[in-house]
Amino acid sequence: TCHIIGYGHRAETLKRALEIGAIDIAYADPQAAVQEAELVILCTPVGLLGSIIEEIAPALPPGALVTDVGSTKQSVVHAGDTKLPAGVFIGSHPMAGSEKRGVEYARADLFQNALCILTPTPATDPVALSKVTAFWKMLGMRTTHLSPLDHDRLIADISHLPHALAAALVMVQSDPALALAGNGFLDTTRIAGGDGNLWKDILHDNRQQVRQSLSRLLLELQSLDRLLDDSQASALVEYLNAAAARRDTLVQRKLRENASGLL
Amino acid sequence: TCHIIGYGHRAETLKRALEIGAIDIAYADPQAAVQEAELVILCTPVGLLGSIIEEIAPALPPGALVTDVGSTKQSVVHAGDTKLPAGVFIGSHPMAGSEKRGVEYARADLFQNALCILTPTPATDPVALSKVTAFWKMLGMRTTHLSPLDHDRLIADISHLPHALAAALVMVQSDPALALAGNGFLDTTRIAGGDGNLWKDILHDNRQQVRQSLSRLLLELQSLDRLLDDSQASALVEYLNAAAARRDTLVQRKLRENASGLL
Repeated sequence: TCHIIGYGHRAETLKRALEIGAIDIAYADPQAAVQEAELVILCTPVGLLGSIIEEIAPALPPGALVTDVGSTKQSVVHAGDTKLPAGVFIGSHPMAGSEKRGVEYARADLFQNALCILTPTPATDPVALSKVTAFWKMLGMRTTHLSPLDHDRLIADISHLPHALAAALVMVQSDPALALAGNGFLDTTRIAGGDGNLWKDILHDNRQQVRQSLSRLLLELQSLDRLLDDSQASALVEYLNAAAARRDTLVQRKLRENASGLL
Repeated sequence: TCHIIGYGHRAETLKRALEIGAIDIAYADPQAAVQEAELVILCTPVGLLGSIIEEIAPALPPGALVTDVGSTKQSVVHAGDTKLPAGVFIGSHPMAGSEKRGVEYARADLFQNALCILTPTPATDPVALSKVTAFWKMLGMRTTHLSPLDHDRLIADISHLPHALAAALVMVQSDPALALAGNGFLDTTRIAGGDGNLWKDILHDNRQQVRQSLSRLLLELQSLDRLLDDSQASALVEYLNAAAARRDTLVQRKLRENASGLL
């Protein structure tokens, strides 16, 4: 039989997790929690992953695998590869969740049809990789493999940059402008409602890639500014139509993925 | 009794509007449509409002008022004030709707609790203003008054800039990055799914204000880039928390507005 063992630093969180059945057994000590583990899933903020890996390393039983759910992968994979025995760590980034945080937002269908990116390196044990891949598939996820660097580059573009941008878009507004905000503005900035500490960790950890994404966006916005010139009306409509079409392709793909998940 | 008279340049649209009860009578000619009107509501794309005002001007009966639903106000108010008799035109911007377009998306509760901005000038007739204000309130809207310039400035910040930004955020993505897009990205870019021609009209008409908003955003993004420096982690967390708190204040206000609308 399979037991889900939980460790967390707040007793209250462990108590609620037990109550709602998210975990079967609770430990107040990370080393005790992993001592009989087959698969350890680290879910701390990105900035704490390195130290928790160090903490559990001496207590891991032979054959145990360790993965994580962090939104950046270079630093944690480096920590896993250097602080754990070879072949033990596999980086994972299950792309699911919301701006809500806490065990009370646990949902059985959270991972259904969502994408999990696994980030093997040349040192990764193929058997371990296929075991962790199978684990995420068992939860209903689609999976893909990328190098830690490719992950951090692409996720900086598609996830970290939009987050930073949503925060800036809120901060640039005057109070009289905010008083006129409609639902469109709330949608556009929804991801800026997330936990500031959690996102500081992510953006700071991946700052090199995020700054590159940001600098490409600044160039893009400068060309958009030129399209707002008096003489560029027809180029502007082409630009807006191209953006709408690209987004629509995405929406259609999401609909197909969700439909195939229902079969 | 009150009749809703519809004019549109496509016969098919008028036919569907009659079928679903959105209008009582359809006209294929704008001058015929307005000849017995008490209140004319212009709902064309922003770029066509000037010419439709010119077209209906000779046919308007005495005492009729004209308003519009455009997302920019300086140009249409100027057209209304110069091409119609004094006191006839009142600019309106009912902030409701979605990226969907067409009579098939008509909804009886579309305007409920949403905000309508009316844009009087020193030349506006106060009685006409209060009549048009009462009309939007009758549809369930909250109303506020701003000068056409203040409207265009503030709406450039809170609506037109986010739209331009959402388009740029889609366009800056590579295909491999788009393949990793989650629901957060779809939310953030939802408004970029709108009709390109409609939005070209809006952004082009309000380009002077939009470029000012964009240049302030570029400065904001440059300071955000500095917060991504190695040494600025604590300033970054403050920034992200401030953005989350400002947005949360907005969300709470929206919830209160919706709750009070239910009384």
